[in-house]
Amino acid sequence: MEFVPLADVKLDDAMWSRQFALVRDVVLPYMWEILNDRIENAEKSHCIENFKIAAGRSSDRYYGVVFLDTDLYKWIEAVSYCLSVEKKDELESFCDAAIKLIAEAQQPDGYLDTYYTIVAPDKRWSNLMEGHELYCAGHLIEAAVAYYKATGKDTLLKISRRFADLIDLTFGPNKRRGYPGHPEIELALIRLYEVTKEKKYLDLAGYFLNERGVGENIFTEECTKEDHAFIFPDMAHFKADYFQTQAPVREQCCASGHAVRAMYLYCAMADYARLTHDPELEKACLRLYENTTSRQMYVTGGVGAAKLGERFTSDFDLPADSAYAETCASIGLMLFSSRMWLLNGKKSNYDIWEQALYNTVLSGMGRDGHHFFYVNPLEVVPQTVAHNPMLSHVKTQRQKWFSVACCPPNLARILTSIPGYIYALDGDRLYILSHLGSSLKKGGLYVNLARKGDDYTLTIDGGPREVCLRLPENSKLISDQIAAQDDGYFIIQHAGGKQEYSYSLIPQVRILKAHPSVSAAAGKLCVQRGETIYCAEQIDNASPLSALRLPGDAVFSEVKGDWLDENMPILKTVGYSVSVKSWDQLLYSSQSCVYESREITLIPYSQWGNRGENEMRVWLTEK
Amino acid sequence: MEFVPLADVKLDDAMWSRQFALVRDVVLPYMWEILNDRIENAEKSHCIENFKIAAGRSSDRYYGVVFLDTDLYKWIEAVSYCLSVEKKDELESFCDAAIKLIAEAQQPDGYLDTYYTIVAPDKRWSNLMEGHELYCAGHLIEAAVAYYKATGKDTLLKISRRFADLIDLTFGPNKRRGYPGHPEIELALIRLYEVTKEKKYLDLAGYFLNERGVGENIFTEECTKEDHAFIFPDMAHFKADYFQTQAPVREQCCASGHAVRAMYLYCAMADYARLTHDPELEKACLRLYENTTSRQMYVTGGVGAAKLGERFTSDFDLPADSAYAETCASIGLMLFSSRMWLLNGKKSNYDIWEQALYNTVLSGMGRDGHHFFYVNPLEVVPQTVAHNPMLSHVKTQRQKWFSVACCPPNLARILTSIPGYIYALDGDRLYILSHLGSSLKKGGLYVNLARKGDDYTLTIDGGPREVCLRLPENSKLISDQIAAQDDGYFIIQHAGGKQEYSYSLIPQVRILKAHPSVSAAAGKLCVQRGETIYCAEQIDNASPLSALRLPGDAVFSEVKGDWLDENMPILKTVGYSVSVKSWDQLLYSSQSCVYESREITLIPYSQWGNRGENEMRVWLTEK
Repeated sequence: MEFVPLADVKLDDAMWSRQFALVRDVVLPYMWEILNDRIENAEKSHCIENFKIAAGRSSDRYYGVVFLDTDLYKWIEAVSYCLSVEKKDELESFCDAAIKLIAEAQQPDGYLDTYYTIVAPDKRWSNLMEGHELYCAGHLIEAAVAYYKATGKDTLLKISRRFADLIDLTFGPNKRRGYPGHPEIELALIRLYEVTKEKKYLDLAGYFLNERGVGENIFTEECTKEDHAFIFPDMAHFKADYFQTQAPVREQCCASGHAVRAMYLYCAMADYARLTHDPELEKACLRLYENTTSRQMYVTGGVGAAKLGERFTSDFDLPADSAYAETCASIGLMLFSSRMWLLNGKKSNYDIWEQALYNTVLSGMGRDGHHFFYVNPLEVVPQTVAHNPMLSHVKTQRQKWFSVACCPPNLARILTSIPGYIYALDGDRLYILSHLGSSLKKGGLYVNLARKGDDYTLTIDGGPREVCLRLPENSKLISDQIAAQDDGYFIIQHAGGKQEYSYSLIPQVRILKAHPSVSAAAGKLCVQRGETIYCAEQIDNASPLSALRLPGDAVFSEVKGDWLDENMPILKTVGYSVSVKSWDQLLYSSQSCVYESREITLIPYSQWGNRGENEMRVWLTEK
Repeated sequence: MEFVPLADVKLDDAMWSRQFALVRDVVLPYMWEILNDRIENAEKSHCIENFKIAAGRSSDRYYGVVFLDTDLYKWIEAVSYCLSVEKKDELESFCDAAIKLIAEAQQPDGYLDTYYTIVAPDKRWSNLMEGHELYCAGHLIEAAVAYYKATGKDTLLKISRRFADLIDLTFGPNKRRGYPGHPEIELALIRLYEVTKEKKYLDLAGYFLNERGVGENIFTEECTKEDHAFIFPDMAHFKADYFQTQAPVREQCCASGHAVRAMYLYCAMADYARLTHDPELEKACLRLYENTTSRQMYVTGGVGAAKLGERFTSDFDLPADSAYAETCASIGLMLFSSRMWLLNGKKSNYDIWEQALYNTVLSGMGRDGHHFFYVNPLEVVPQTVAHNPMLSHVKTQRQKWFSVACCPPNLARILTSIPGYIYALDGDRLYILSHLGSSLKKGGLYVNLARKGDDYTLTIDGGPREVCLRLPENSKLISDQIAAQDDGYFIIQHAGGKQEYSYSLIPQVRILKAHPSVSAAAGKLCVQRGETIYCAEQIDNASPLSALRLPGDAVFSEVKGDWLDENMPILKTVGYSVSVKSWDQLLYSSQSCVYESREITLIPYSQWGNRGENEMRVWLTEK
């Protein structure tokens, strides 16, 4: 099974074409300015400047986090996805300039990492736990592969291969022992293997995976060396499970530690299991995926509940107001889900993929493309956030940029790569995994999925094949022509030639509860339409939102919101609000609650915070 | 109005006599061993050792927090309260030895603070924000006054006066500007004034109060000096409201900042307003008291919601699982409440006093007298606490000692001083404020309040007087003899001579809700019997406790608990539990909840965690 690549797919979908264009025309040019430190009143980036210093073009000092290089790499990757779809000379020329600079920053032996090159050239590979060299190398490789596929230009691919070859010379059996503190190199090496067919890259990825959690922990060894200096002093207290080194990867069973690290590691495990047909590793992936999605995932597709360590905590610990739920972690969950699909073809992997995409990931970027959320809470009371330092990570408004800015460029690369996740081929079988208006042309196959609201016309031209349309979890597929179902897919036996199939995909509105062990959601309800989770904002409702009461059998009407995409209706129902009148100076009382009937208005979670600072709440109290 | 002092009151109350004896016979001797570093496997104290170093008896190095001296002072104060009631030669000899040591540690000019004497003798008074010298002086004075009142011995009183005199020479108009980062000196100076009648101490207290928040903030001045070094580096980020210096004290309206600091400051404000008849200051006290108790107080009488800064946050922000609610802050709330009573005689002040005492304060100490809670959450899931670093301050079991051990000795001094808060006199009027079995003998007045469970026999012998019995908020007073009521007091017109009055005080069980703005309690109920808040522990109920559902009209039966005090029944009712059976690997679902009928067992919150580690929960979800 393989996805139909981006270059063969054309998006034509009201909402997603708008998102794609927003990233291409607004976000990526804006980020280029940011990376070059040309945006006023935004956090300083210094990313390009660091490359200039390493390249000998500037004599400034290194500034920024140790893994800042990846901002540029992820930006190039995102630009590449845009270029795969349509040529954009300006973006391509920015990229070529950046690649020239990267080439100059690469050291004679192939090493490439501006932090170590500038700050500590004699400390290469001495701090794999925190140093992020292998993480940066991974993003370099991903960018190089993407740019090569998009443009056919191989300068960056050669740069990345030189570095990968150096890494291969350095680490492995009978060489230096090692694995990264922040996984990423593994999945990147597998992509490099897929494009170059050079098996040593797959083997090196396998080495990093197989060495992890086996024998003496190399991070412990590093930290106990006499001359060791912590880059992130807090990490001194982190245990092996924070870095997913608590056990060999095939024995790990619970998603643990830093959520992005975990997701990237599990991605590589799934890739490697698929390519090497390793049933034990596949089982471990399934275990970790199930634990992530059925024990430790917010209903918004967010993962990693705790700010301290940006990490997974324990099963069912999903606090709403102090949630971390980093945008990048949900991007990681999308990447993991799509790889799990390649591994086992289960349609539920795509339910999770969409749950992350339509909620936490989409929430990460404001409608203007200039503002971003790093942290994605499920409940916000601005007055509380302002005064409770335990919530200092929560922002009530999207920010222009961050000092650690992993999320915006990561958003850019995932949102521009969406078309590459819609279709997959398995021999003569075609999968339509996500119902986005789009078309594909590949070999003798032509597919057009024309979308008008909830109505779809699927045109297929080409030889006979089985077409599997995924049924999204919370939608109804209605069609006179398509009836056969199998494991969550609607099946069309396309006899060959050109044929049209019509269907409607009607998002259902349903009220969700959480598992009884989720303390933060006990007695609470949340509303989902299709894959979209809804929330209440103060601007549409009364403050405090904690006083709202939603009947368990509420029926919702859908209203077009003038500020929202067409396929994102506002939901309205009649519920209640606890009257605050009788409370006056009371804080606790045994008096009966007085309920006032009140209209409750909900908007898609991903769209909160676009109309000024105000209260927001996903889980509403049941009445 | 004044309280009948401890020395004139004799406690004879099943539960409180046990508590008093526990502190006197177990806690205080144990603490003496702790202060002398003679308890194995407990956090090192080093308190006495620091005094030995300052006294020249040891050449060790200072160890411990900057305000460690107060552990000894608070211990002496607690011992004094025991000695006021009954002579205990061993405790008194420990005290005398300690006082001898303190005398030796005092500097020739009267200065007394082991940290500065040992570590930074040239830095005296240079860091009022963090240095705690005035805070330590305050606790020294409180100990000295208590020991003098208990024993008549004035050595420590003289030591404390010498230090107070030095402070008076140092600070004031036309002297050095100053006020403490951690209030305490102010209320202590007022106590010193009350025992010595020396008005300069009252005036100095007034100076510290009146200077606070006026003009240039002296802490800002300190921190911006070139040679300034932070003792607590986090404090660099704290704003004026953290130290209650954001405005002149008469203009402050919301309880803010570090909760213990706030409480101690407000205590002094109330004392000073009462002694100087300052209506503007009285109004400020009332405002701050109302904000504290009707906007920022946990139902358990805990205050200060956030771990970071141990501080107040904002109105209605009262998270259950991450609550800080420091034991010392609730002790401070008791002190503030009793002073508010002296100021305005409102019986509701004592409702709060009891709410703090019977819940958070009592929870602070284990039934063995050897284990203590510093932090008092309203919800604990041990697995979550173990894995979520945002909850690292929460302990699921009481600890032997703490590296910052303010709470245990503070508990000792409040629990031993309880008899001094039961009765008050206002001319010929006698107040009985808390219905503890006890007697008092003062001048020609003899009162005996004999208690048998909920039944009381009040014997009064002496001249004619009005006796006012406070009606606790959640109890019924039943009597054939006492009927007249006024503002929450039952009134007896005692005609003189010896007379018996009988009444019963029946604690009511009621179900409380929180103000609709308290997000953490939306849709939740908690159970209160008399002044006692109840909680569910896993050992008596099913796990997860988040699955329990309490009907809003639940009726409770009271059952004697063999491990609990007689007046602390266990409460039982029939409620529900959400079945987890149908959830299996589901995390979110629109399925109907299946409710199983189930007995719900509740115990007093103060007694949780005495039977091993397990889940605990105060707020139960309503059904």
